[in-house]
Amino acid sequence: MRLADSDGDGPETELAPAGAFTAQERAAVYRAIYARRDVRDEFLPRPIPGPTLNRILEAAHHAPSVGLSQPWNFILVRDPAVKAKVHDIFTRSNAEAARMFADARSVDYRRLKLEGILKAPLNICVTCDRARGGPVVLGRTHQRDTDLYSTVCAIQNLWLAARAEGVGVGWVSIFDPEDLRPILNIPPEIVVVAYLCVGFVDQLFARPELEARNWAERLPLDDLVFDGIWGKPRA
Amino acid sequence: MRLADSDGDGPETELAPAGAFTAQERAAVYRAIYARRDVRDEFLPRPIPGPTLNRILEAAHHAPSVGLSQPWNFILVRDPAVKAKVHDIFTRSNAEAARMFADARSVDYRRLKLEGILKAPLNICVTCDRARGGPVVLGRTHQRDTDLYSTVCAIQNLWLAARAEGVGVGWVSIFDPEDLRPILNIPPEIVVVAYLCVGFVDQLFARPELEARNWAERLPLDDLVFDGIWGKPRA
Repeated sequence: MRLADSDGDGPETELAPAGAFTAQERAAVYRAIYARRDVRDEFLPRPIPGPTLNRILEAAHHAPSVGLSQPWNFILVRDPAVKAKVHDIFTRSNAEAARMFADARSVDYRRLKLEGILKAPLNICVTCDRARGGPVVLGRTHQRDTDLYSTVCAIQNLWLAARAEGVGVGWVSIFDPEDLRPILNIPPEIVVVAYLCVGFVDQLFARPELEARNWAERLPLDDLVFDGIWGKPRA
Repeated sequence: MRLADSDGDGPETELAPAGAFTAQERAAVYRAIYARRDVRDEFLPRPIPGPTLNRILEAAHHAPSVGLSQPWNFILVRDPAVKAKVHDIFTRSNAEAARMFADARSVDYRRLKLEGILKAPLNICVTCDRARGGPVVLGRTHQRDTDLYSTVCAIQNLWLAARAEGVGVGWVSIFDPEDLRPILNIPPEIVVVAYLCVGFVDQLFARPELEARNWAERLPLDDLVFDGIWGKPRA
């Protein structure tokens, strides 16, 4: 495959007006961003129809990827027996995690529900194939982890599209990926990036659940934005 | 800070109706996802007004983060002298990258424009503070890189919000992050996750530029989705 010429009928002819978003369209994008939640307990049992799921997966697949390498895969898990195995490895790791927090914090930690593996009708394991696109991938030459980052962009697209479809998503990370590998038959060279619990929701927390439960607070954005150089506040 | 009780006036009272998105709202979210591009050359010089930039940064700040740790920072770079230094480290790395491709592919690589550092009126370096949230972060105990992944979720939120605002974003990864560190005075313990070129656009490629330029092709989604276990196609 060779590049098209930059003159004549070259790819520049594919440039098209970006087209402004209307105020309503812009508001809808912000609504998805602001009303998206990490869901643990609000999943409804109703299965996700095929066309809805396909729209959500296509949204993920249209994420940016380094060198257009599209390194992601999506394993759809619905079998209760498989979900039970995943729940088991979560439970074991979660007990370890609880012991890492001191005193009162550990007590609080044990009171949190941190996954919806069994309750959500669908689980999706999102992986990154680090060999996809061959040994030299445009844009990955000097930052090897950009393929993992591309996969995370796909996850965030999936999450926002799901929100717009009325579907909640919860990202479970309290397990050792090596324990998940044999359950889903994931080859050694494939990286497990995320394990998502997915299902319709009719209620959501109005703000992040960890904030509502007084586990952590939203930081002021102004403290996180620097002007020109690390550490310099904006005027 | 202690957790609120789960009975009486506990956090469950903060559950609210999720509220269906209208067909128009859903379409707007998908429009942002499908029409988002990695922009290299279409940037307009017009500066981004403060309120627009704040909306884009707030969108990033409302990404999911592991344990609500919000590990991101945003360094806003506008000084042409600083941008010139960043462009220099890109240029050096890009020449190295070109030599990694064989023959015709290397010739093609050299014809691609892969950054808009100088042309975009604003550059944003997005970093991850791996110490934020303390030594033990909820959800990060068994998957250490989830803080990096949270930062990438913020970047994807930023990218989509920017698209809705008529602002293009291009992610430049062809440089060694260690070379960027002294230019922006980034401390050793902070990870450079992304360097973004940001500016208004009035034209965009109708499909990914690397596809339009015949560098790579979109993979069929069906090849990337597995049913229940790695490698099993959907029926």
